[in-house]
Amino acid sequence: MNLPPLRDILEQVSSGTLPAGEAEQRLLDYLRELPYEDIGFARIDHHRALRQGFPEVILGTGKTPAHIAAIAARIVARGHSLLVTRTDETAYAAVLAEVPAGVFHPVARAITLQQQDIAPGKGTVLVVAAGTADLPVAEEAVVTAELMGNQTERLFDVGVAGLHRLLSAHDRLTAARVIIVAAGMEGALPSVIGGLVRVPIIAVPTSIGYGASFGGIAALLGMLNSCAGGVSVVNIDNGFGAATIASLINHL
Amino acid sequence: MNLPPLRDILEQVSSGTLPAGEAEQRLLDYLRELPYEDIGFARIDHHRALRQGFPEVILGTGKTPAHIAAIAARIVARGHSLLVTRTDETAYAAVLAEVPAGVFHPVARAITLQQQDIAPGKGTVLVVAAGTADLPVAEEAVVTAELMGNQTERLFDVGVAGLHRLLSAHDRLTAARVIIVAAGMEGALPSVIGGLVRVPIIAVPTSIGYGASFGGIAALLGMLNSCAGGVSVVNIDNGFGAATIASLINHL
Amino acid sequence: MNLPPLRDILEQVSSGTLPAGEAEQRLLDYLRELPYEDIGFARIDHHRALRQGFPEVILGTGKTPAHIAAIAARIVARGHSLLVTRTDETAYAAVLAEVPAGVFHPVARAITLQQQDIAPGKGTVLVVAAGTADLPVAEEAVVTAELMGNQTERLFDVGVAGLHRLLSAHDRLTAARVIIVAAGMEGALPSVIGGLVRVPIIAVPTSIGYGASFGGIAALLGMLNSCAGGVSVVNIDNGFGAATIASLINHL
Amino acid sequence: MNLPPLRDILEQVSSGTLPAGEAEQRLLDYLRELPYEDIGFARIDHHRALRQGFPEVILGTGKTPAHIAAIAARIVARGHSLLVTRTDETAYAAVLAEVPAGVFHPVARAITLQQQDIAPGKGTVLVVAAGTADLPVAEEAVVTAELMGNQTERLFDVGVAGLHRLLSAHDRLTAARVIIVAAGMEGALPSVIGGLVRVPIIAVPTSIGYGASFGGIAALLGMLNSCAGGVSVVNIDNGFGAATIASLINHL
Amino acid sequence: MNLPPLRDILEQVSSGTLPAGEAEQRLLDYLRELPYEDIGFARIDHHRALRQGFPEVILGTGKTPAHIAAIAARIVARGHSLLVTRTDETAYAAVLAEVPAGVFHPVARAITLQQQDIAPGKGTVLVVAAGTADLPVAEEAVVTAELMGNQTERLFDVGVAGLHRLLSAHDRLTAARVIIVAAGMEGALPSVIGGLVRVPIIAVPTSIGYGASFGGIAALLGMLNSCAGGVSVVNIDNGFGAATIASLINHL
Amino acid sequence: MNLPPLRDILEQVSSGTLPAGEAEQRLLDYLRELPYEDIGFARIDHHRALRQGFPEVILGTGKTPAHIAAIAARIVARGHSLLVTRTDETAYAAVLAEVPAGVFHPVARAITLQQQDIAPGKGTVLVVAAGTADLPVAEEAVVTAELMGNQTERLFDVGVAGLHRLLSAHDRLTAARVIIVAAGMEGALPSVIGGLVRVPIIAVPTSIGYGASFGGIAALLGMLNSCAGGVSVVNIDNGFGAATIASLINHL
Amino acid sequence: MNLPPLRDILEQVSSGTLPAGEAEQRLLDYLRELPYEDIGFARIDHHRALRQGFPEVILGTGKTPAHIAAIAARIVARGHSLLVTRTDETAYAAVLAEVPAGVFHPVARAITLQQQDIAPGKGTVLVVAAGTADLPVAEEAVVTAELMGNQTERLFDVGVAGLHRLLSAHDRLTAARVIIVAAGMEGALPSVIGGLVRVPIIAVPTSIGYGASFGGIAALLGMLNSCAGGVSVVNIDNGFGAATIASLINHL
Amino acid sequence: MNLPPLRDILEQVSSGTLPAGEAEQRLLDYLRELPYEDIGFARIDHHRALRQGFPEVILGTGKTPAHIAAIAARIVARGHSLLVTRTDETAYAAVLAEVPAGVFHPVARAITLQQQDIAPGKGTVLVVAAGTADLPVAEEAVVTAELMGNQTERLFDVGVAGLHRLLSAHDRLTAARVIIVAAGMEGALPSVIGGLVRVPIIAVPTSIGYGASFGGIAALLGMLNSCAGGVSVVNIDNGFGAATIASLINHL
Repeated sequence: MNLPPLRDILEQVSSGTLPAGEAEQRLLDYLRELPYEDIGFARIDHHRALRQGFPEVILGTGKTPAHIAAIAARIVARGHSLLVTRTDETAYAAVLAEVPAGVFHPVARAITLQQQDIAPGKGTVLVVAAGTADLPVAEEAVVTAELMGNQTERLFDVGVAGLHRLLSAHDRLTAARVIIVAAGMEGALPSVIGGLVRVPIIAVPTSIGYGASFGGIAALLGMLNSCAGGVSVVNIDNGFGAATIASLINHL
Repeated sequence: MNLPPLRDILEQVSSGTLPAGEAEQRLLDYLRELPYEDIGFARIDHHRALRQGFPEVILGTGKTPAHIAAIAARIVARGHSLLVTRTDETAYAAVLAEVPAGVFHPVARAITLQQQDIAPGKGTVLVVAAGTADLPVAEEAVVTAELMGNQTERLFDVGVAGLHRLLSAHDRLTAARVIIVAAGMEGALPSVIGGLVRVPIIAVPTSIGYGASFGGIAALLGMLNSCAGGVSVVNIDNGFGAATIASLINHL
Repeated sequence: MNLPPLRDILEQVSSGTLPAGEAEQRLLDYLRELPYEDIGFARIDHHRALRQGFPEVILGTGKTPAHIAAIAARIVARGHSLLVTRTDETAYAAVLAEVPAGVFHPVARAITLQQQDIAPGKGTVLVVAAGTADLPVAEEAVVTAELMGNQTERLFDVGVAGLHRLLSAHDRLTAARVIIVAAGMEGALPSVIGGLVRVPIIAVPTSIGYGASFGGIAALLGMLNSCAGGVSVVNIDNGFGAATIASLINHL
Repeated sequence: MNLPPLRDILEQVSSGTLPAGEAEQRLLDYLRELPYEDIGFARIDHHRALRQGFPEVILGTGKTPAHIAAIAARIVARGHSLLVTRTDETAYAAVLAEVPAGVFHPVARAITLQQQDIAPGKGTVLVVAAGTADLPVAEEAVVTAELMGNQTERLFDVGVAGLHRLLSAHDRLTAARVIIVAAGMEGALPSVIGGLVRVPIIAVPTSIGYGASFGGIAALLGMLNSCAGGVSVVNIDNGFGAATIASLINHL
Repeated sequence: MNLPPLRDILEQVSSGTLPAGEAEQRLLDYLRELPYEDIGFARIDHHRALRQGFPEVILGTGKTPAHIAAIAARIVARGHSLLVTRTDETAYAAVLAEVPAGVFHPVARAITLQQQDIAPGKGTVLVVAAGTADLPVAEEAVVTAELMGNQTERLFDVGVAGLHRLLSAHDRLTAARVIIVAAGMEGALPSVIGGLVRVPIIAVPTSIGYGASFGGIAALLGMLNSCAGGVSVVNIDNGFGAATIASLINHL
Repeated sequence: MNLPPLRDILEQVSSGTLPAGEAEQRLLDYLRELPYEDIGFARIDHHRALRQGFPEVILGTGKTPAHIAAIAARIVARGHSLLVTRTDETAYAAVLAEVPAGVFHPVARAITLQQQDIAPGKGTVLVVAAGTADLPVAEEAVVTAELMGNQTERLFDVGVAGLHRLLSAHDRLTAARVIIVAAGMEGALPSVIGGLVRVPIIAVPTSIGYGASFGGIAALLGMLNSCAGGVSVVNIDNGFGAATIASLINHL
Repeated sequence: MNLPPLRDILEQVSSGTLPAGEAEQRLLDYLRELPYEDIGFARIDHHRALRQGFPEVILGTGKTPAHIAAIAARIVARGHSLLVTRTDETAYAAVLAEVPAGVFHPVARAITLQQQDIAPGKGTVLVVAAGTADLPVAEEAVVTAELMGNQTERLFDVGVAGLHRLLSAHDRLTAARVIIVAAGMEGALPSVIGGLVRVPIIAVPTSIGYGASFGGIAALLGMLNSCAGGVSVVNIDNGFGAATIASLINHL
Repeated sequence: MNLPPLRDILEQVSSGTLPAGEAEQRLLDYLRELPYEDIGFARIDHHRALRQGFPEVILGTGKTPAHIAAIAARIVARGHSLLVTRTDETAYAAVLAEVPAGVFHPVARAITLQQQDIAPGKGTVLVVAAGTADLPVAEEAVVTAELMGNQTERLFDVGVAGLHRLLSAHDRLTAARVIIVAAGMEGALPSVIGGLVRVPIIAVPTSIGYGASFGGIAALLGMLNSCAGGVSVVNIDNGFGAATIASLINHL
């Protein structure tokens, strides 16, 4: 990440050790050689770690194990932490050959390697799941949030049809700094929690349900139309995205 | 409503006062002359009062005031109670000329005349509305249910974002024999109530909301995907339909 | 289900055997320790049997056989009846190891164990199916309704394209206390039945059909827009939900 | 409509009165000068009367009264019958100035002038409407079918919720040569009629209904998924299209 | 099909050999015992052959081979022709055991047995397919139409992107009595043919295409919105339905 | 807001000044009498100010000016700040009669009265709008955020088609603590900003656009599928909701 | 548009007339001061004329006449040509006060002022409209294309239902360098034209139609699924966008 | 491709060697025998190579390997280049038996044989892909464009979340004559590129993404609503279509 400092170049021009024409070329190169790595089939955005506090994350869907392993190797080689989402045992085997210390999280379907010195978040990220079928999405959020330096807690199987299960955890709800709520079917849980607390809620609709749940659309619409304040929404099943936002908030 | 009794015809044939050929014709006619009234632009189903316990109801939408008044006059003339839904002051003026005792309910947008001897329902129909904007739909349900012989109660503005408002009415919820729940936006209220009581709930999605509520679709999907048992659903804004079902249940 | 009775605590405080500070703590605990069982990956809502007349039901979709068997074992251990829906032979094998008396219903795709002393319903729940392809949904409704203490009858393959098949069963239609109607394709059957009877009808759209049936949406919309009164609707293929509502009505 | 006959040209070439080069040009022109009239903002397809048995019809929607009147004048000038659909009193006034004998049909929202010698259809086109709100669509079908030379009959307000109204007209249903059925809401009427007769049925979904009827989509889907044979479908509210097809069938 | 004739009963009553009370009961039974056969899991509508000119057809989708074979055996035993649609080799093997003369059509995915004395249609049913991928749907239409007594012709692979292929078959298009057009993708072919002929066109959208064709929705909408007269539409991939309508028209 | 303190009651029981039975009743009442105000057509949730840091907000849509004014009067009487959204001049006139100090914001379509002592947020809420047509939504966010105690900045008309306008404001983007981005059409702006900063972004799709923008759906989907981390989404045109979330985050 | 040239600055540094520190600041300013004009409620992208060959265009929808006039004045003041789309007489009056030479095109709903020295396109842009109701969209394309320096031709009312009207214009179709095709309803025209020519076709779905045309969706899907090569698509009713693309192609 | 020249026939008639009657027949035949080859299950449009500059292309989806190989053999036998899209190894094996020189492109899923003398395009077609998962679509575009005689360049993995990767390729973007942009998820890349260049952009939405990306609909809508000029759109995943259009433009 050793970019030629702008001041240095200008000083050299000023002192006459660098001709103006050559300096112009170097400045243009400097503007052009931005910090990503071109490995043929991909351009890895290593600069993201500087710009956004966390390196580029590999979405496993639609990539071959070989591609995943190759990108993972480059990220780890830079000293960055590794996160592969939506992946499986086969890709894990390929990654292990390049990154022997990689860890596989089967429920979350993620591969991680904690490597970076990441600043700790200020409070707790509470990850709530309405039902047991929402666990893969909730666990993806937990794994992501922890890798990004956050302390997490889990509160699972507290759907609104048995309200007492949720109300009995009132203390934990109010103690969190930011809450991620994963729910499928009618997606009502964020609305109920939103009425109980005063922290931001990241709602994740899940594709759990059948018939007119339409793979998560019912939950998505329910959450977007929440009558409670403080609820924002991410894509269906996007536990990773929810955790990324929660981590940004928790590091403010 | 004077239909030739089947037994009478057969007795006459048996006694020889009616030839078989003529009897055959009368029986066929009998099967054909079912009890509706053809008034040119409409066929009024007077038989419905016998068949289903309540006469035909006039949906005001898409009918001219003159048509509404004409149909209303025929229904009242038969001694049936009158219900016009989705109507307005203009149609009411036209109806008044034919049915001077008719009553207009502005919030419910309905015209009624209680005329029939209707059997009283067995318990209370509780009509719940999530917000004040759901009142027209909820009031349509109240007016309909009362005209059909049911005792009703109202519980309005108890949306899930302020759960204590609902929980404080727990007694009234459990005391009802059937509950109608009108809600727009994310439509989560029936799910929460469904987890608290053991009576049937008729959920009515309302078209209240904006953006991705899509005129009630978000609430409709939320209710269809309710994780609580005991919740069935009617069309968007269909307070009349909900009350009809509630009345059938309350008269069992 | 041994909760500390509120009166007992207060009596002890009054008699001086319990200090106020300690009593406060116990009351708060009492409010917090609501009757569900936390088994790690799930919180089983045993209280539901008290609150709603039937214990928590296990939706098999998205759960591993091991999870299903573990939850089933806890429900049965409490003396509750068992119902697993949307399940298969593999899960049944796992359940049998924990619940040897469990029964598998292959067409309904359900596992049951009748254990509880359930109050009988007052009349008959008639389950109607439009075509033979709607049988899995209809049978799920039959199995559920019977487990919940209802007498059921089946009326299958009476689609509206051959109206005489339905009309010949007119007696059975009018004899039922509540009718469940499962239909795919255009979903017109509940409208026709709704015009013939005066009992509540729970319409279940099924995902049977092709092309523009869109996995049950055509039937769902047809039922929501029914021109007949008395028809309420549940989610696509939701035979279980329909039976739950029918049972609530039949027990009123 | 005086096109140069192909044979004539070739005879002239053969007899030497027409040089080959000139004949080539005339043949190409003949292929190019097809019989439509270019009036600047429109190309009137007068050839359609020959090709399809009825002249071009003017869809009033989106056209100014002046445009409608101008096109109408040209069609009438050719001796063709005139049909303007989806129009109103204002356009009628403009048309009258050009076509003094034009007739306005307010319910059908159509302007007609019967001018052509049209072959009579072979049987009766029966136009059925489920409810009184479907009349504009049904009347558009009646007006169109009659202008195209068909004898029509009306059977209105026979929705499936009062089946006896329909069954009592069984004779008229079986006597028709082709049946047009206009219905909104759940659109079940064509399915029921389709099971009773053996003639082709043209189903017209109407935009009547509310909530989840989605402006006729529910009826459209219901009709496309009809479990009865013999039902084909046209666009929502397309009474004109239904009558065009019925007329083609009735003239076979 | 031996139903007690109405006249016989009445004659017996008239002659005193049948008491009125007993006659009443028999008449009611007569009304009830309509001609279908209840075989437990299905009610076969044998009456359909009388009512609609063709016996009940078996939709293979969602039925087991055993069920298909059992229903097929009953239909054949009544002397009716057999048609099973949406079926495969496995079901064919099961059917062969019951109906040894059954024929399998692999492209059309249908099983047939021509048995009935069916009246021949009056003209030719032309089946047009836009591309080779539409053949299964087109062949289903051909097989169905022929079994129903129609002479058919095929015109395949004449999509609008190479218009000359279609225009060169102009004679065959105008010679047909009714035209079935199967097309996927944008579904424009019926519009173009509709502008060339004056016979009814039954358009069948197929699920061929990708991306924004949405499994046939693009073609379905294209056909419903056809700017050409004479085009009516059936469900996506419904070659059977199109042929049923075409046969009704061709037998008029 | 004077609730009977739990400890007080228990002390009285302990000291014998309050009998156990009476204490039981008061405790139950205490649980029941939650702090909302029932004014007939509405239940105002005054407790929300304690629970969530800001009092109940009045959504103007679907309420009469009289209702809005009545609710506003009660909120102001409790000493809370007032916010009415989606309102107009007419409602403002009615509110002024009750709340003379109320302020109307015409672009934001909001009525406000700053009354409460609200804790100031910690940083700046930057409100970005893609185009000038997104201003009403953006201004609703600004007005809401300021009333909730936040310092705001505006950055308007920086759509992605002229990227230099956005990039020139890079300093302001990175200086904000939380960013609200309102955009219609393809809704790409949050993705681009999300790649530049490391603070949470609340994306608000607006209904600006035409054709296939479908009233904001295109923008909504674009934002939900953002390839950038840190972007969560609220309902279409929901500037108020975005500001509520931003304020929660800014007060952490 | 006088930006400080990079080389100049560096030469001055090299010659010692500009200190390095000051040069650094000027270079940063240079990067920051990109050429747009901030007028408070908008940031006018004057640079677009350099970057893309045509200045920023004002979309009238959702802007007040005053805003439109203000932005128009600034664009004209820079010497750029003016184009306001989706506008009306009222906005035109406001613009005239600022831009007296502005011209209003009522059918195209556009205001223009040709001011710039625009390079002429190389061939002809042919604008085809399927029906007369598509004229506003087609004229918007014509006005836009001409303002951008292209020679245009119109070919209107050549829908596929009367194919001879189109085929007779075969010469004009093949003579164009790029073709814009506006069509509503089923949108089949681009497919047919696409099969006849070998130039790029820009298809514009229009919102003309009713019922299942869904405001242009049917045409949009038809065009996206075109079986002809060479057809790309823009948004519904987007005549402006089509002309912009056509102009880019015609200037290559 | 030896068609009887029109002039020859006419010359023979003129010279008397061909009677007029026979000439008429031959001319009609000439009009009918248009240049396609009927091979039973398909009509190969060999004329397309003349009409549109490239022969008919085989869409592999829904065709058997045998059909693909047979059509491929006929195309190659005519001396045309071969392109099979959406195909696989199995079909390739079948094609090899008929076309030994055929080449398989595994990422692009295409079979090609360059055979024709194709005119070279005038500039470079730049194919841009937002992410590595968009490669199959992008490669289909590259293979197609090259076979059609265009020089191509690839620019992959330059999504908008890391804008510097795109901006660093600014030279390559501005150097292209036409740009194809394949992107999934929110599909924002064409909008950003559209703001940077002044050449036509063909946007290809890909089905990459999950949840509310709906198989490419989110990207499709994003591109159709692009706020940048110069962007037209093809069907989801239609790399072939994009390249066909790009080639037409590049050959102008």
